[in-house]
Amino acid sequence: MNTTNNIVARIDQLRTIMRARNIGAVLINGADPHLSEYVSERYETRAFISGFTGSAGLVVVTLEQAGLWTDSRYFIQAEQQLQGTGIELFKMRMPGTPDPESWVAEQINSDQKIAIDGKCLSLNAYRKLQEATSSEIIDADLLEEVWIDRPSMPQQKAFELSIEYCGESRKSKIERIQKTLIEKNASCQIISALDEIAWTFNLRGTDIQFNPVWIAYAVVGQQATYLFCEDAKLDDQLKTELTEEGITILPYEQIYTTDWIPEEIKSFYIDPDRTNYSVYRTIQSDYTVIEGISQPCLFKAQKNEVEISNFHKAMAKDGAALVNFMYWLQKQMQQDDSISEYDVRLQLQKFRAEQDNYQGESFYPIVGYAGNGAIVHYHVEESSAATIQNKGLLLIDSGGQYLQGTTDITRTFAVGPVSDEEKHHFTLVLKGMISLTQAQFPENTKGYHIDILARQALWQNQLNYGHGTGHGIGHFLNVHEGPMSIRQEFNEHTLKPGMVMSNEPGFYKEGAYGIRIENVIACKENGSSDYGNFLAFDTLTLCPIDLTCIQQELLSKSEIQWLNEYHKKVYDTLNPLLEQEQKEFLSELTKAI
Amino acid sequence: MNTTNNIVARIDQLRTIMRARNIGAVLINGADPHLSEYVSERYETRAFISGFTGSAGLVVVTLEQAGLWTDSRYFIQAEQQLQGTGIELFKMRMPGTPDPESWVAEQINSDQKIAIDGKCLSLNAYRKLQEATSSEIIDADLLEEVWIDRPSMPQQKAFELSIEYCGESRKSKIERIQKTLIEKNASCQIISALDEIAWTFNLRGTDIQFNPVWIAYAVVGQQATYLFCEDAKLDDQLKTELTEEGITILPYEQIYTTDWIPEEIKSFYIDPDRTNYSVYRTIQSDYTVIEGISQPCLFKAQKNEVEISNFHKAMAKDGAALVNFMYWLQKQMQQDDSISEYDVRLQLQKFRAEQDNYQGESFYPIVGYAGNGAIVHYHVEESSAATIQNKGLLLIDSGGQYLQGTTDITRTFAVGPVSDEEKHHFTLVLKGMISLTQAQFPENTKGYHIDILARQALWQNQLNYGHGTGHGIGHFLNVHEGPMSIRQEFNEHTLKPGMVMSNEPGFYKEGAYGIRIENVIACKENGSSDYGNFLAFDTLTLCPIDLTCIQQELLSKSEIQWLNEYHKKVYDTLNPLLEQEQKEFLSELTKAI
Repeated sequence: MNTTNNIVARIDQLRTIMRARNIGAVLINGADPHLSEYVSERYETRAFISGFTGSAGLVVVTLEQAGLWTDSRYFIQAEQQLQGTGIELFKMRMPGTPDPESWVAEQINSDQKIAIDGKCLSLNAYRKLQEATSSEIIDADLLEEVWIDRPSMPQQKAFELSIEYCGESRKSKIERIQKTLIEKNASCQIISALDEIAWTFNLRGTDIQFNPVWIAYAVVGQQATYLFCEDAKLDDQLKTELTEEGITILPYEQIYTTDWIPEEIKSFYIDPDRTNYSVYRTIQSDYTVIEGISQPCLFKAQKNEVEISNFHKAMAKDGAALVNFMYWLQKQMQQDDSISEYDVRLQLQKFRAEQDNYQGESFYPIVGYAGNGAIVHYHVEESSAATIQNKGLLLIDSGGQYLQGTTDITRTFAVGPVSDEEKHHFTLVLKGMISLTQAQFPENTKGYHIDILARQALWQNQLNYGHGTGHGIGHFLNVHEGPMSIRQEFNEHTLKPGMVMSNEPGFYKEGAYGIRIENVIACKENGSSDYGNFLAFDTLTLCPIDLTCIQQELLSKSEIQWLNEYHKKVYDTLNPLLEQEQKEFLSELTKAI
Repeated sequence: MNTTNNIVARIDQLRTIMRARNIGAVLINGADPHLSEYVSERYETRAFISGFTGSAGLVVVTLEQAGLWTDSRYFIQAEQQLQGTGIELFKMRMPGTPDPESWVAEQINSDQKIAIDGKCLSLNAYRKLQEATSSEIIDADLLEEVWIDRPSMPQQKAFELSIEYCGESRKSKIERIQKTLIEKNASCQIISALDEIAWTFNLRGTDIQFNPVWIAYAVVGQQATYLFCEDAKLDDQLKTELTEEGITILPYEQIYTTDWIPEEIKSFYIDPDRTNYSVYRTIQSDYTVIEGISQPCLFKAQKNEVEISNFHKAMAKDGAALVNFMYWLQKQMQQDDSISEYDVRLQLQKFRAEQDNYQGESFYPIVGYAGNGAIVHYHVEESSAATIQNKGLLLIDSGGQYLQGTTDITRTFAVGPVSDEEKHHFTLVLKGMISLTQAQFPENTKGYHIDILARQALWQNQLNYGHGTGHGIGHFLNVHEGPMSIRQEFNEHTLKPGMVMSNEPGFYKEGAYGIRIENVIACKENGSSDYGNFLAFDTLTLCPIDLTCIQQELLSKSEIQWLNEYHKKVYDTLNPLLEQEQKEFLSELTKAI
């Protein structure tokens, strides 16, 4: 339990250890050794030491003080959760907020050390820290001594994702990586990100909520391949299979030693943003280290034809589940005025679970009624969920994991009468979503070149939204994946055929309502001319967009045509998957305007 | 004369000097000590040593070989001009082309030196060279010994640009720079770019064709200001005035010494992209050097209200000149079938010269009929100019310098019947130009975020153009100025109110025709909301767009409305400046569609 008393006691214990080892400050960033977005309980270190449960933040404990740095999404939550802990909240990117390094520098003596857990810090993050401080940094997980009943590593088994779903064998993927090693003149690459390991070996798992990954490291060498995982991860059949394919299975912790390294390995290729400092420290003195972006990260982002075709199947199932849910919601609202946001979450999950090959939610859904919809990262909980009334807008951002693919969809529904202002803003968001969907662009275009297409209708009305427009989506993998993105921020990675991304413009009126319309789109080759090779998007998501929220006069002919064609495709594809009443319901929702 | 024999002899002489000094390679980049886009004759070093007259390129002479690196704009011209000189053409950015540094490395011995003229290389370019080579680099202008009759520095006088045109006193500008010096903890800034000196001191000149600048350096210190220029630059009255304002006038070459530096100067702020290596070398061992973008470069880009209001006046005069020219062309074409592109150039200049306060062309105009219009940097010359026939498209990109401002305009005219394809492409280019003009965007937006607006109509048809969309334009200064731009390439500088830029999408069908429509636009504040402070553009250019080239059905209502309103403004503003016949002509050209 993260009670206030517990937190205070843990910090006290930590300081006792710090004093004994002449450590002036400890940095706890809440990451795991694979630098995952979602971590297993064992690595919920930030929550353990501070009580703060947001998804991003850095806790710094010095001998006299303690601070949490987090961003504006979490200011209110952090203020509440830090109460009584003695931990000060530092609001990131706000005027006057010191950076953690200079805050630490003011408090520690020049002979005192700074401790970090090098397993939970990327090599690049470590280097940044090193540049910012003149103190000695030691690589030590001090929480190990404070956290008595610390959860162990997850012990779930990995399982094979059949070639019918993933479309390319392990052998072929490993050979592709090996080819790049020759180009880069590296003996091997360390693969550290869990989704890259899952992709490379066609093995999925259930070690981490929402992400179908399993905990391991891998090294792909020019001559041999190594998997580092706990023994219980692989059953005997899988072990035999992998061994027969020439893959050596080693204990998980052995990645932090050099005794497994054969003579032919002279150099390591690593991704300094996706490999932790301790892994780097293990090899750096005895081997040449070549740095660059992880190759499977790049490969994985471009889905093959089998994956795309499976995505279509996953989207049809997801769409059918959503129509069933929408039908239920409409019926239920007529007879029950106490439905809460949390009920909606459970029902959605239930309708998804009815679908074949459903493997769970792809992230914690956002169900925001009225003003709650304007809180971009609203976390619905049973105790605090709002009751949905017969008016205004309900925003639902949710997704499922299927063996055929990962889904991520946002729809904003009218649950009763909506104002002209709400309709106006809904239509502007829709225009942005359609504009990005319809884009054609030459190869070498980057996400930041086309991001404006999703914003332009809003900008022309001096409106905007404060989040990115699109993120990569894994194939039955993480709902957020790199390296590309569609957002204003610089990102050097170009958009390439096969990349599957979200397209999710929004608009948020604080305290009143939130609107977001999100489809998943797949980048594809779309023809060539004397002026270049052009790319475009296919929409994968299949789910109606609420026509009652649209001001039709604001849409161009081409936008109306897109909407009608989209709705026809939604109807034609989902119709065979639905019962009679839901078919009729869908027919009404998807009628041409 | 740059005859082939001359070139060969010059290279021979250069090699004699090289041998005597153990120099293995000389790099000649054709820049001047102020790193100007246009240089005075004295610094046409690239043409002197190679005969190549293009505006960009690097000549490298080794003891055995010589090469010219230039980009695709100049491949044909360079091949012709290098014939017989023994200089090999290296096509930049083409597969297989070595970079000059590795080409040099293969030819010189480890004890041989590389010579550059450090006055003509930016500090950053010098550092790049230094990183790429292991040879010793010496800073020496070897051409000085080869070029016997080398032109001296231009001796034109500087003149004052009155406050009624520039809107801010020298004193105020210097104080603004001084304020930033305090923030940056620097004793002074070296100003090296000629347009920044012209802007800071409200002094213009005629030292360099097309650019109303004069040759000087400046140092603005927290306590005192220094101008380094040849004595003849300033007449007695100006000298007295400047001295009375506390500005110390020193000889031009003294910037390369330290004896003028008073005790209170401890540190220099310099822009490593806008300051040459020799200037840096002069101070770097004795003083702290603080690097960053030049402050007057940033200030200058945001025009004040007086400058903007003068820009409007300059544009009206320029527009009247263009209408007079268009009227002349139409009349002339009816009775004379031998008008050439070069005649057009001269006539345009003549009509501009009739306007008050005209100071000359702002760049060498591009007049491209039919297929010549598709050559983006087409250089019209009397001897090779094409005759304009009674069909197809004529592209004219030209500009003038007026005391009130600098103009830069491209119009593409039908000089007879045009095909549906030409009209289609013209309309797509126009749609892009209008779309960018109508953009609204939040502050902190960068050029690469909005560049797509000018391209989208083309991209949707799998068409494109191979140049940027917009460059900054000086106020009665250089027609190209930084630091911002509107193009696909990364540029960290945001768009800010007062920035004056070109908006010039195009389309080029090789061998057939070129289309470009260019207006000058000024960025302005356009209101605020809960979602940010928004910016938009005002169009400054006043000149009709050829209605006979438009496929009206491709334009949206909003685009037609913009065009009609624009043409009404053009007519209303230019009408009072024209004779009766031209008024009627303009009325026809600007009628509502």
